[in-house]
Amino acid sequence: MKTRAAVAWQAGQPLTIEEVDLMAPQAGEVLVEIKATGICHTDYYTLSGADPEGLFPAILGHEGAGVVVDTGPDVKSLQQGDHVIPLYMPECRECKFCLSRKTNLCQAIRSTQGRGLMPDATSRFSLNGKPILHYMGTSTFSNYVVVPEIALAKIRKDAPFDKVCYIGCGVTTGIGAVVFTAKVEAGANIAVFGLGGIGLNVIQGARMVGADKIIGIDINPVREKMAREFGMTHFLNPNKTENIIDDIVQLTGGGADYSFECIGNTQLMRQALECTHKGWGRSIIIGVAAAGAEISTRPFQLVTGRKWEGSAFGGARGRTDVPRIVDWYMEGKIKIDPLITHTLKLEDINEGFQLMKAGKSIRSVVIY
Amino acid sequence: MKTRAAVAWQAGQPLTIEEVDLMAPQAGEVLVEIKATGICHTDYYTLSGADPEGLFPAILGHEGAGVVVDTGPDVKSLQQGDHVIPLYMPECRECKFCLSRKTNLCQAIRSTQGRGLMPDATSRFSLNGKPILHYMGTSTFSNYVVVPEIALAKIRKDAPFDKVCYIGCGVTTGIGAVVFTAKVEAGANIAVFGLGGIGLNVIQGARMVGADKIIGIDINPVREKMAREFGMTHFLNPNKTENIIDDIVQLTGGGADYSFECIGNTQLMRQALECTHKGWGRSIIIGVAAAGAEISTRPFQLVTGRKWEGSAFGGARGRTDVPRIVDWYMEGKIKIDPLITHTLKLEDINEGFQLMKAGKSIRSVVIY
Repeated sequence: MKTRAAVAWQAGQPLTIEEVDLMAPQAGEVLVEIKATGICHTDYYTLSGADPEGLFPAILGHEGAGVVVDTGPDVKSLQQGDHVIPLYMPECRECKFCLSRKTNLCQAIRSTQGRGLMPDATSRFSLNGKPILHYMGTSTFSNYVVVPEIALAKIRKDAPFDKVCYIGCGVTTGIGAVVFTAKVEAGANIAVFGLGGIGLNVIQGARMVGADKIIGIDINPVREKMAREFGMTHFLNPNKTENIIDDIVQLTGGGADYSFECIGNTQLMRQALECTHKGWGRSIIIGVAAAGAEISTRPFQLVTGRKWEGSAFGGARGRTDVPRIVDWYMEGKIKIDPLITHTLKLEDINEGFQLMKAGKSIRSVVIY
Repeated sequence: MKTRAAVAWQAGQPLTIEEVDLMAPQAGEVLVEIKATGICHTDYYTLSGADPEGLFPAILGHEGAGVVVDTGPDVKSLQQGDHVIPLYMPECRECKFCLSRKTNLCQAIRSTQGRGLMPDATSRFSLNGKPILHYMGTSTFSNYVVVPEIALAKIRKDAPFDKVCYIGCGVTTGIGAVVFTAKVEAGANIAVFGLGGIGLNVIQGARMVGADKIIGIDINPVREKMAREFGMTHFLNPNKTENIIDDIVQLTGGGADYSFECIGNTQLMRQALECTHKGWGRSIIIGVAAAGAEISTRPFQLVTGRKWEGSAFGGARGRTDVPRIVDWYMEGKIKIDPLITHTLKLEDINEGFQLMKAGKSIRSVVIY
């Protein structure tokens, strides 16, 4: 079949809209009609050429929601008409990682996914007979996609695609880091470095679980208003204080119980660790640092009880936890609507990247 | 009263044996006759002058065992004749840290202890009217010492002082890091960097809890034999391999579930982190690094599920857990006797430091 898609032909170039050929789903694969997709910093990171693992030509996009159109052989858990969110972190429930009960980093299809291919090591996309690569196993910048069954979360049918698509990455990454990775308890004090889309979701996750002080840190004062609406109780601007660590230690009477770095700046990662409480502070790295960048600290920080950790996809098991987060949204426990500042047609997708670069959007969503 | 003690007059000088004046225990304090004391690297570190927080003149020693001789006012949990191990990490059971249930780093008397003083900010030791400082709140290189009640673990009376004194630091630091900090589970694979006194205790702690592969790493091949007797299953010599991390990853089918750095070398701390398993590996820093030294790694190591942590006094709550470790020794669950390679009289204590510097002893114990 044919599908419309925004194709990234090479790094640094705008996407172009093409009619692409899409092969039918093979064994264990599902054909999904994408109804909406967010545009995420990670798409931009790859498109910019900064990602050393970026491959071209490819169809980017990893924050979608849609409907099952067809299923290949051996697909058991999904059928035509099911509403789904594609998962760049699959959940096979059979690999060593899934069975460990200690991580969400399912490795079942990692090697092919990293090469832009389906599990059988080929692509379903092509144009004029030449293959176009998948991206993160999802390629939600295509109206129709083929996705492995283990990389699809089945969600309730009353959830709006143009909102819950954001759960495919940003919402889950932020809220999950609080709920699944850190398991923040009621009454805890938390510090959030960076009040963009991820940071705001960390904040509302912390509010949902009953955190006490929720301290937001950003050099952009414009971020304060919405962060307060999402649950932030204290705002600190590093440009307006001598020592942000001291400020946090004083505000919390000893340090944050949990901190979250949501930017990808290795200097902030150090501050995020060192502002946590002696004896039990845990600092969670969410942001993706530049290739080759390193974090450092004195080991004394760890010997005196702080823990340095990270979170990918919010520690969420996609098929198990993403439907729960959709429920939380539908039940009003978390907000998504104010975060989606722009909606676009596929034809205007490059505009979404411009808005992101200019810092004008929190999230732009393409509606097919 | 008078007591014999080895006094450290200044950094870099041998200890001298003196008849020191000792004040009676004040409120909340206990007079203890020390029966035996180990000589630990931390004593040497302070005596050498390398410790920026070292103070002189002082009576060093923090790994002792003895008998309660007298109690000051308000002492409730101890009485004359009780057998005790002095604790450089007290357990008040009342401070924010003790009540957090998340750490053993009781802060009740930290500031005075750090200045070499009892909780009322004075010293009990003096000579010719001039005060001599306490050290780590324990000063076990004195035959008689005054120690706060909250810094004494009451132990069973059939335990030999000249063995269980080692539980006052080294044994607890190593075994506790496994049992209390990491909470290693049966079947886990662990890697131990450094097979000195701490490393050997990590190894036997791992054996006690039923670890599977217990991999020891040391550049000194002489260490292999005893480490195997303590439970090590695999030995790796970094001087005889190209890439120690690869070796550990291969041996364990993906990486160690837990690793322990027992030396204080920041490069090894990095290796210890990076040899752990993607998704859930936890690396525990036990060794004390040189002042100002820093650890570093790529944040990707943490984002992909590894955790960087530390352990002080093995995460043990002194009054609660030290008596349990004494029980484990008396029940034969752990070994101490082979680790005590030398016993000395107080007069020969400087010889103990020489043996340590020369790498000839695992532990020298002074018997009063």
